[in-house]
Amino acid sequence: MAESILMNIDSPSDLRKLPHEKLPELAAELRKFIIDIVASKEGHLGASLGVIELTIALHYIFNTPEDLLVWDVGHQAYGHKILTGRRDIFHTNRQLNGLSGFPKREESEFDTFGVGHSSTSISAALGMALASNLKGEFQKQHIAIIGDASIASGMAFEGLNHAGVTNANLLVVLNDNAIGIDPSVGALKQYLTRAKVGQKPSQDNIIQALNFKYFGPVDGHDIPGLLKTFEELKKIKGPKFLHVITRKGKGLQKAEEDQVKYHAPGKFAPDTGELLPYNTDGLPLKYQDVFGLTLVELAEKNKKIIGITPAMPTGSSLKFMMDAFPDRAFDVGIAEQHAVTLAAGMATRGFTVFCAIYSTFLQRAYDQVIHDVALQKLPVIFCLDRAGLVGEDGATHHGVFDIAYLRCIPNLIIAAPSNEVELRNLIYTAQLNLTAPLVIRYPRGRGVVLDWKQEFKAVELGKGEKLKDGTKLAVISIGSICSNVNVAIESLGFSEEIAHYDAKFVKPLDERMLHEIFDIFDKIITVEDGVISGGFGTAVLEFASINHYHAQMKCLGIPDIFIEHGNVLELQEIAKIDVLSISNAIKDLLK
Amino acid sequence: MAESILMNIDSPSDLRKLPHEKLPELAAELRKFIIDIVASKEGHLGASLGVIELTIALHYIFNTPEDLLVWDVGHQAYGHKILTGRRDIFHTNRQLNGLSGFPKREESEFDTFGVGHSSTSISAALGMALASNLKGEFQKQHIAIIGDASIASGMAFEGLNHAGVTNANLLVVLNDNAIGIDPSVGALKQYLTRAKVGQKPSQDNIIQALNFKYFGPVDGHDIPGLLKTFEELKKIKGPKFLHVITRKGKGLQKAEEDQVKYHAPGKFAPDTGELLPYNTDGLPLKYQDVFGLTLVELAEKNKKIIGITPAMPTGSSLKFMMDAFPDRAFDVGIAEQHAVTLAAGMATRGFTVFCAIYSTFLQRAYDQVIHDVALQKLPVIFCLDRAGLVGEDGATHHGVFDIAYLRCIPNLIIAAPSNEVELRNLIYTAQLNLTAPLVIRYPRGRGVVLDWKQEFKAVELGKGEKLKDGTKLAVISIGSICSNVNVAIESLGFSEEIAHYDAKFVKPLDERMLHEIFDIFDKIITVEDGVISGGFGTAVLEFASINHYHAQMKCLGIPDIFIEHGNVLELQEIAKIDVLSISNAIKDLLK
Repeated sequence: MAESILMNIDSPSDLRKLPHEKLPELAAELRKFIIDIVASKEGHLGASLGVIELTIALHYIFNTPEDLLVWDVGHQAYGHKILTGRRDIFHTNRQLNGLSGFPKREESEFDTFGVGHSSTSISAALGMALASNLKGEFQKQHIAIIGDASIASGMAFEGLNHAGVTNANLLVVLNDNAIGIDPSVGALKQYLTRAKVGQKPSQDNIIQALNFKYFGPVDGHDIPGLLKTFEELKKIKGPKFLHVITRKGKGLQKAEEDQVKYHAPGKFAPDTGELLPYNTDGLPLKYQDVFGLTLVELAEKNKKIIGITPAMPTGSSLKFMMDAFPDRAFDVGIAEQHAVTLAAGMATRGFTVFCAIYSTFLQRAYDQVIHDVALQKLPVIFCLDRAGLVGEDGATHHGVFDIAYLRCIPNLIIAAPSNEVELRNLIYTAQLNLTAPLVIRYPRGRGVVLDWKQEFKAVELGKGEKLKDGTKLAVISIGSICSNVNVAIESLGFSEEIAHYDAKFVKPLDERMLHEIFDIFDKIITVEDGVISGGFGTAVLEFASINHYHAQMKCLGIPDIFIEHGNVLELQEIAKIDVLSISNAIKDLLK
Repeated sequence: MAESILMNIDSPSDLRKLPHEKLPELAAELRKFIIDIVASKEGHLGASLGVIELTIALHYIFNTPEDLLVWDVGHQAYGHKILTGRRDIFHTNRQLNGLSGFPKREESEFDTFGVGHSSTSISAALGMALASNLKGEFQKQHIAIIGDASIASGMAFEGLNHAGVTNANLLVVLNDNAIGIDPSVGALKQYLTRAKVGQKPSQDNIIQALNFKYFGPVDGHDIPGLLKTFEELKKIKGPKFLHVITRKGKGLQKAEEDQVKYHAPGKFAPDTGELLPYNTDGLPLKYQDVFGLTLVELAEKNKKIIGITPAMPTGSSLKFMMDAFPDRAFDVGIAEQHAVTLAAGMATRGFTVFCAIYSTFLQRAYDQVIHDVALQKLPVIFCLDRAGLVGEDGATHHGVFDIAYLRCIPNLIIAAPSNEVELRNLIYTAQLNLTAPLVIRYPRGRGVVLDWKQEFKAVELGKGEKLKDGTKLAVISIGSICSNVNVAIESLGFSEEIAHYDAKFVKPLDERMLHEIFDIFDKIITVEDGVISGGFGTAVLEFASINHYHAQMKCLGIPDIFIEHGNVLELQEIAKIDVLSISNAIKDLLK
């Protein structure tokens, strides 16, 4: 085996010393390096494999970090990280205290803009470029690398629309592989596909209409071609756009063939790509699957049911509904704002719309929840998957703000089932005769009940439940963190002293239950997997204040910091909502 | 004078009985009716005058309310309201218990979708259209009427992008008058202007590229032409787009000439359009002007200062900076998401960016505040005008959620000055050496200090102030509601018993001051002009709980309902944060 090229590249300046001819070899090494590590350490695979050549060409031609690369979403930036001084710690990717799975400013000067959510790159790079103009740095290059799924989001359009009337030295590189996590959708995607088929489109060029100079499409795996193109683009001032065609998963056959699965495949054999067997026998189903399967089950009888997801059919398992009822299930692409108001529009016509959005992504449609749904009291159902700590995706993805930002909105009902049977029954209840918008938040990953497919039972909205009596202290938990509380109480030698209540609803609060609790107990702990500030525990404080209760209270939840990446247990320990921290809090309060 | 046509139209079915030839006469009457009432009752003028003919033609050709009209933003819908049974109560427009200034579902079956914020119409109408397909109502027409400023917002693009791959019976009517509240900006606007100049554009048609059938441009004041066009469009299935050219303020010369001022001109002479003299001598300046003038003053010395506004240069008074330093002030159009991330991008390059956004519109960029600014701890300064109750614009526009939805975000500093001198000093402080993002929220309208232009004083971030000693009870207020508290306390015969503290900061709380308060007082009232749930008072409750204080507390603020339109004093009474309610709350707690 020849000497490794990759092992001698500690920064892009090393890369730029290589002759052109060596770059394809480097690409092969870089691809293998990523495959080998992701195969055992897990992470996002397909996106990074697809931009190996593009990454090398960008760092080769542009003078990073003086020239500024902004990666959109960022799970395609593994090659970028490895070439910019992080090769030897890349195996710590997505682990606690290890590298972030996304670009992050604190991590490297080459990471010009932190990311995780999509469609921010054009705005950020344009900001940098306009700043450079003000500084008189007219030679500096600013490059946003954005995928075809991300560019269809409204925010990206806003960035293009502004850039087109500036003289910013901005290059938008469209990494067009026709897929985000799931296949891209929408009219723009169809347009881009036509552009590919017809090669350089002479008519109807949306990008040129927005005042960008348009180049491409070019082959994103042809290094000599990319080098030549970037050299030329470097000389052109103002906003310009390069359409690059790539293949997601490029270089690993299985990843190319099943691009959805190999977006983040888990462990696999690095040589063949074969997924390692993962025995799920005896494991509960994922919450998302309980959602997806239950919705299909109900939709078979209830023709009013519609499902909407903004670009997360697989991740939310709305895919099941899309397969079963293609006319009644909509993947609208990365368009959370549109998804919510579309749902509101359908609700005005009498449909029962389930809008499946990750908790963290509903932040993108906050105004629409207030202005289009809650204010009009339209009975849209928001199914917020990935609520709470999500683990390895880290700070950009934790669904920890939802309780706080939703609780202040009038008319909303906010539920957090503590297990997947409750989730199922909430979905059932939601489609019976809902008269106000309902939010159901539930976590990433597997539930706790094997026998999830139980007969439907209607849920009384706003009603909590006493799970366990106790004599000295009451714990009130909300949502799936309930199971940590269960274990924490059981672990105590004096568990008979501890009562446990499952609030089930953040809004409306079960005031009858709370009166009972405050009448009995003068020591109360609330536990949630969302932020403490303004969260569920705070709602209980507000209740206590209004009703002149003076119990000693302790609110457990996410503290006022951004929680980084790591596995969920590790992160729960940091937030002090793990089993041990909860039992310690109980002991402390009893002292 | 001939018999009035308008006075005999109680619904569009009456309108549809008229012969074509009578419609121009009706248009003249309708225009005069609106001018006469808005002249004395105030409200939005220019937008409605611009769509008189369009409104008549739509209701004439389409079978409303069976066919569904969705107005974007909605301040152009006065004609629509008058023609749909609300003529005789139109004089109550924007008054307490009167008509809303915007379409509102509760008000009329012709108001298919409530609105106030922009760019929701395409999503909502598409939702209705897809619902009609599912119901088998294939003849039903769904029409979104959207302006050229609104269509440039990302959300509208998301709607178009989805609609283009559906068979929805959707007609998007672009009401292109080249202006929103301020002149439209952006590449799309330039494109639309080219389309007008060249008439029907054969190349680069963005709309056709998104799979819409494109028609126009047509003259939006030519009733016969509009009727013919709509008749034809009715027969065409699927997504279609009509580009209509109108003139904002049409028919009132002064309103046509000064379209910004006559967007919502206040009182004027109905015959001439002459604005009625309004003596501002002896009145304090508006908060927005203190912001705008102070920023210019500072920007003259500090070259790092940049200003950004999403489409509110006049409303936020960033216009002053745009005039003084056109290179360093950006109106990015209705693009709040882009505005925030653009600011973040500039901040990474060392600039001090002031992002001027109305409180209610920052809801549109909530994710960007979290993900792009706070997570990266970039020292962007958000100047949130129109915080608190805004009055006549009503439920869609009150800036009452900001404290609750921002307080839960780590790294943010949140300030609420109690007068415009404090606002000025906060702006001054922000550009000195800020190391974290800062939110400054302040209300609509005039301040309370005549001598606002005082020498700059740096503010200690996170520091409150005792305004008044007291012996029995402490009131802690945040922001400009401070003045109500002052008057309330003075009005009491026992004002010496009441202490008053101005918190000045929602985050971080001035814990030293709070310890002092809780050490001294066992009766505490908090007062804010934001929602109670999760708001400032709640932050104080959290502090008390953590520190084991057991004072009797009462949190005054906006209750958990949507507050409708009316003047600010009336709305304060409803929310019980008016002077009398505050003094009553003090008396009650002292009992």
